Amino acid sequence: MREVKRPVIALLSDFGESDYFVASMKAVMLGINPDLRFIDITHRLPAFDPAAAAFVLWAAFRYFPKGTIFLAVVDPGVGTARKVLVAETGDGYFFVAPDNGILTRVLKQDPPRRLHALTERAYALSEPTRTFEGRDRMAPAAAWLSRGVDCDDFGPRCVSYVMLETKGPRRTKRGLRGRIIYTDAFGNAITDIPEAWVRDLMGEDTPGPSCLVGKERIPLKGSYSEAARGDPLCLIGSVGLIEIAVREGSAVKRLGLRIGDRVAVVPASSSDSVTRESG
Amino acid sequence: MREVKRPVIALLSDFGESDYFVASMKAVMLGINPDLRFIDITHRLPAFDPAAAAFVLWAAFRYFPKGTIFLAVVDPGVGTARKVLVAETGDGYFFVAPDNGILTRVLKQDPPRRLHALTERAYALSEPTRTFEGRDRMAPAAAWLSRGVDCDDFGPRCVSYVMLETKGPRRTKRGLRGRIIYTDAFGNAITDIPEAWVRDLMGEDTPGPSCLVGKERIPLKGSYSEAARGDPLCLIGSVGLIEIAVREGSAVKRLGLRIGDRVAVVPASSSDSVTRESG
Amino acid sequence: MREVKRPVIALLSDFGESDYFVASMKAVMLGINPDLRFIDITHRLPAFDPAAAAFVLWAAFRYFPKGTIFLAVVDPGVGTARKVLVAETGDGYFFVAPDNGILTRVLKQDPPRRLHALTERAYALSEPTRTFEGRDRMAPAAAWLSRGVDCDDFGPRCVSYVMLETKGPRRTKRGLRGRIIYTDAFGNAITDIPEAWVRDLMGEDTPGPSCLVGKERIPLKGSYSEAARGDPLCLIGSVGLIEIAVREGSAVKRLGLRIGDRVAVVPASSSDSVTRESG
Repeated sequence: MREVKRPVIALLSDFGESDYFVASMKAVMLGINPDLRFIDITHRLPAFDPAAAAFVLWAAFRYFPKGTIFLAVVDPGVGTARKVLVAETGDGYFFVAPDNGILTRVLKQDPPRRLHALTERAYALSEPTRTFEGRDRMAPAAAWLSRGVDCDDFGPRCVSYVMLETKGPRRTKRGLRGRIIYTDAFGNAITDIPEAWVRDLMGEDTPGPSCLVGKERIPLKGSYSEAARGDPLCLIGSVGLIEIAVREGSAVKRLGLRIGDRVAVVPASSSDSVTRESG
Repeated sequence: MREVKRPVIALLSDFGESDYFVASMKAVMLGINPDLRFIDITHRLPAFDPAAAAFVLWAAFRYFPKGTIFLAVVDPGVGTARKVLVAETGDGYFFVAPDNGILTRVLKQDPPRRLHALTERAYALSEPTRTFEGRDRMAPAAAWLSRGVDCDDFGPRCVSYVMLETKGPRRTKRGLRGRIIYTDAFGNAITDIPEAWVRDLMGEDTPGPSCLVGKERIPLKGSYSEAARGDPLCLIGSVGLIEIAVREGSAVKRLGLRIGDRVAVVPASSSDSVTRESG
Repeated sequence: MREVKRPVIALLSDFGESDYFVASMKAVMLGINPDLRFIDITHRLPAFDPAAAAFVLWAAFRYFPKGTIFLAVVDPGVGTARKVLVAETGDGYFFVAPDNGILTRVLKQDPPRRLHALTERAYALSEPTRTFEGRDRMAPAAAWLSRGVDCDDFGPRCVSYVMLETKGPRRTKRGLRGRIIYTDAFGNAITDIPEAWVRDLMGEDTPGPSCLVGKERIPLKGSYSEAARGDPLCLIGSVGLIEIAVREGSAVKRLGLRIGDRVAVVPASSSDSVTRESG
């Protein structure tokens, strides 16, 4: 058993906040470990969309203290053969999540040291339902993790897990190519093109590179305030990826952006354009 | 005075999350007991609807550790003669709530051991307003409960309390009759027909019973995944009641369901239908 | 260094609850002080509107225990020359907020004992981005405050700060004049006319004064329950200001009220009216 001080459980789901679902999970966990504290990441993930969940979890997890336990309940495929994973990563984070790809981005950055399927009934509610696995099996597992139970105790070791197919960005002769992978509540569109690649491209280049989305050419700025109100800009966003924004407005609405749209980053001198295409 | 370890207050209201109402209540409680931890059940209950609040509170409460204090502020009838109740149940839960029926389902399952009207001014803010009883009288009472003050100290004993009229399900010769009592954010419609009754009806019956809503006959399944995407099903839901769902969709929208609609559960062999009717 | 027991951080932002923004801030703070507890005031403030934030913060702060640290992240003007303030008030509250007027109402009521600009890099994340100052600079500062770091240590003393222009209510020969300064989620419209002024006006007056909004004359009542359902009333609201309400309805919708609208309070005998005017 590990020793756990000041345990924190971070929650992520698509349950919304109008019902009793999230509170029921917290209630069950408090019954197992009365010292727990909870941080809600969000409960408004789009239903049945592990890709959005995978992004949000990845964007948040590394800011938490080591030892934090993440309970991610999005489309757990209750009643199917889909596994529930219990993972400990190399950096010392813990995850309880369905094996549906939610952990794709996290485990790519911080590979699992231990990865097990949750099968042990001793760590579930005594009469689990077939309709609320988050409360009856996953939440108890997270709470037992917080009491120092080891990953190995929850079930057999997994040798593989579901990864969402992510095409990933690439470098081309004429610049960088990527896609929009997330849109936030402000209407910013976040791409998969990493900061480091853009810094390489910038070099001493002035006035600096631009983003291309369809026929739109959007200049890279250092911060929102360098654009005029209502004007589009692209910038290095807060999670180290290039994002497309509109100052005090919504880039998603203004430019009609959608997850999956192609984006290029090109030097100032380029006269390229990029075919926008969903998917 | 009771001894209270690691006190937890669970909150339920129709205040929404855009204003300062919920935070003001928590602030007041922290001033009285700095050791408190809060779990928000929901603050999005429909305004002026004690029936929805009664259901959500009942669905959540029994998963909390014994000793949890529930503060339920929905339509408290501020400025009227309506009482505020302070209750301790047989199972050891505590409730502070307006006497408007919110506690109907909870106290039916877990009857009160102590039930008092909140009248004692020593446990209110020093200058309570007439417009925010939740912050000025109810929150302080919950916080004082968490410090071990007994129910008896808050005011005179109540011999009765408001119960919402609930017709309740019934068994008929041809099956079970009930109503839709709650619809959740996913669009599932929860009935008042209990799991145990349906299990009795099932017996060795194959293929098993169905739900009838109006002319619609909906097959009972073991879990969401046994229906095709977009297809209606009924199943034993996570709080032990029959619910009507659509896999990866909204039963409320797809079937036009509303709270109060009549539902029957009938054996597979039956050719019944049921008149849908609100109220 | 101050000694801090049971530290509480109260959060206020316009980040919404669908993304990872708020959780990232809490995560960073827990990494600095694992003993923290968080109270969310709201994260649904209208974007780019320091006036609404200023009101909500003022309405909530004084109910919190002394020593509470408020982290207010609304339109921080990231990347501009706008300062971030670290303040300690006479009453012993702490604030970390952009210097954009958010603190206007709070500091008018509870003037700062210490007021500094946040410039010290030792209290920021090691590689702060230019796009998420809330997470990278403001949240860490709040967490360090909770560990007892003094305001003086965060940067140079400020001699002035941005105050939102608020015209304020005034007494006239014929009564009181003010404006609507906030509308809540229930549709109540809160004015800047203080309770004490209205009590003066009331005197022995019966039936009591009324609110005028445009041609509408709305009677002052003691509580919501003194009006008929659907009828407008004005009353002394829960933060000590006159507010206009509709019993079990929305005054904002029913009367078409907006922030900035002029409101008068006049004795029952008056036959005045008031020009409604936004701004």
